[in-house]
Amino acid sequence: MVRISLDVMGGDYGPEVVIPGAARALERHPDIKFVLFGIEAQCAGLLEKHPKLKANSTFYDCEIAVAMDEKPSQALRRGRGKSSMWKAIDAINAGEADVVVSAGNTGALMAMSVFCLRTMQGIQRPAIAAIWPTLKGESIVLDVGATIGADAQQLMDFALMGGAMARALFEIERPMVGLLNVGVEEIKGQEEVKEAGRLIREANIDGFDYYGFVEGDDIGRGTVDVVVTEGFSGNIALKAAEGTARQIAEYLRAAMSRTLLAKIGYILAKGAFDRLREKMDPRKVNGGVFLGLNGVVIKSHGGADAEGFAAAIDVGYDMVKNGLKSKIELDLAKYHGGEPPKALSAGMNDEV
Amino acid sequence: MVRISLDVMGGDYGPEVVIPGAARALERHPDIKFVLFGIEAQCAGLLEKHPKLKANSTFYDCEIAVAMDEKPSQALRRGRGKSSMWKAIDAINAGEADVVVSAGNTGALMAMSVFCLRTMQGIQRPAIAAIWPTLKGESIVLDVGATIGADAQQLMDFALMGGAMARALFEIERPMVGLLNVGVEEIKGQEEVKEAGRLIREANIDGFDYYGFVEGDDIGRGTVDVVVTEGFSGNIALKAAEGTARQIAEYLRAAMSRTLLAKIGYILAKGAFDRLREKMDPRKVNGGVFLGLNGVVIKSHGGADAEGFAAAIDVGYDMVKNGLKSKIELDLAKYHGGEPPKALSAGMNDEV
Repeated sequence: MVRISLDVMGGDYGPEVVIPGAARALERHPDIKFVLFGIEAQCAGLLEKHPKLKANSTFYDCEIAVAMDEKPSQALRRGRGKSSMWKAIDAINAGEADVVVSAGNTGALMAMSVFCLRTMQGIQRPAIAAIWPTLKGESIVLDVGATIGADAQQLMDFALMGGAMARALFEIERPMVGLLNVGVEEIKGQEEVKEAGRLIREANIDGFDYYGFVEGDDIGRGTVDVVVTEGFSGNIALKAAEGTARQIAEYLRAAMSRTLLAKIGYILAKGAFDRLREKMDPRKVNGGVFLGLNGVVIKSHGGADAEGFAAAIDVGYDMVKNGLKSKIELDLAKYHGGEPPKALSAGMNDEV
Repeated sequence: MVRISLDVMGGDYGPEVVIPGAARALERHPDIKFVLFGIEAQCAGLLEKHPKLKANSTFYDCEIAVAMDEKPSQALRRGRGKSSMWKAIDAINAGEADVVVSAGNTGALMAMSVFCLRTMQGIQRPAIAAIWPTLKGESIVLDVGATIGADAQQLMDFALMGGAMARALFEIERPMVGLLNVGVEEIKGQEEVKEAGRLIREANIDGFDYYGFVEGDDIGRGTVDVVVTEGFSGNIALKAAEGTARQIAEYLRAAMSRTLLAKIGYILAKGAFDRLREKMDPRKVNGGVFLGLNGVVIKSHGGADAEGFAAAIDVGYDMVKNGLKSKIELDLAKYHGGEPPKALSAGMNDEV
């Protein structure tokens, strides 16, 4: 059984997307138990339409929904203890859930997660990890915007956490980790990045192999399984890539509707176009993972539809099933040379 | 007449691409006079094949070609005063050329350009500006990797130089300039970026309008004419976008060759695909522009073919024709409140 708590009010559409999304995820993973946090008046009717979900979930009424444009500090002040977002996160602390999924406001979700779950022992800062489609499959890129800037030690932590996530997500034993830089020559790049390269190489971590520096175009090429960078450049890389994909889709649409021959060609090749669209479908890889907290938090795109939200739940499900949190704790304990923390030996938080 | 000096030995293919590329550019702009720097033994035969180019150029024999993988410091030591790259740049100082174009090693070209031409008065650091295709046309993004990191004042300088370049390249009066950031809310982002936002807003520059912050996906959307950022994130954005474009082209190729129907559809829609390919063709927008030096330097992709190299020459030609350098000097003088430097009033360096 995997226990997943949901912030039903999160996202641009709230319960209208979250409830059908949860129902879809439940079809795929019948061993999920949901803990739902929402404003009952807005959810009860929708929940009635999904009796299977209703039977496999516990609903908690909340007073407040965090707004998508609310400043993190304001959301925290107004929503602490009583918003659906806060309560969904807090379900992890209460031992009621193994992972939380929200499509709400990223800043507020991060602020509340840090406040409520706290960072793991040995981790200075959390990171948001994105799952990035590549020519070889998928890679993990972190940090894509949890915080701005990172020193060498923080980049080292990101490498550790990203490596553990790759083992959990891709089920490979020693993922390849690279550091994002502006050139492969040792002489280039930021001081922190160079220093992080030395740290990672010397630490010689069990949980992954270190590739060295990678550049922006290596991400889509799938050169490494995990791309480590600080949150500013990671966010810009992610958004620049998303923007380019949207731009090319737009060009393609325009090109295919310009002439009659193109239109006929499009109809004949429709199967191929559908495959392409599926490959480029952001819903398939929906779900940023907050790493470095005492609990796994999955952030779905705010604008996701039910299928997109279900994909974010899938990510959370996999992370719990494959013991993401204990994998990170294990690597951290090995790296810091201490004993793994109690939660690990008990294996209570995210192992099933 | 526009006088363009070429580093004939630069790039992955050297004279084999540079000479035919120059010949193509000459077809389009018969008022170009070329000054060619190369190793004569490797160039003479090729030049014979392009009599029109030969007639419109002066050739200077050089001893050394800078290698594509040479470290900048080594290239400078070995090639100063005698390499084709150095001499091509130095032709600007000698008053023999208005702009230099090279497909050589970026680091070496930047190091030699700074050493040979020096930065403009009032500019602390040069920048590399890329011309980025967008849904609305083209935008300028700078810095894409001349230096790592930038403080608020340097970002302000980039905004000034980018604005001047947009006026020269797009022939618009008041281009819109945005600062790349990780969110549009005032609370987010790096301190330098926030500070630069205040500086630019308060300076209230004549030469452009300030839009505010933009995100990574705004670049391809064409939200602004000029996107200002420091070299690390700019380089990563550029490469991430290039990688994504290549990745989608690969998906498309695979999808269109999978089934017979798709193949037929592809043939029918071939015109449309060709249009798309042309839109995505990196050769069309080849040419990074080094800004902030006492002379205009154009960097072509090292792997460019003759058409790509000709496109880089086109960029250099436009920059001279439209008075890039004097436009930057004018804005700098206005901003710093002083007199425009002499070179401007004389208009000798890049006005025609």
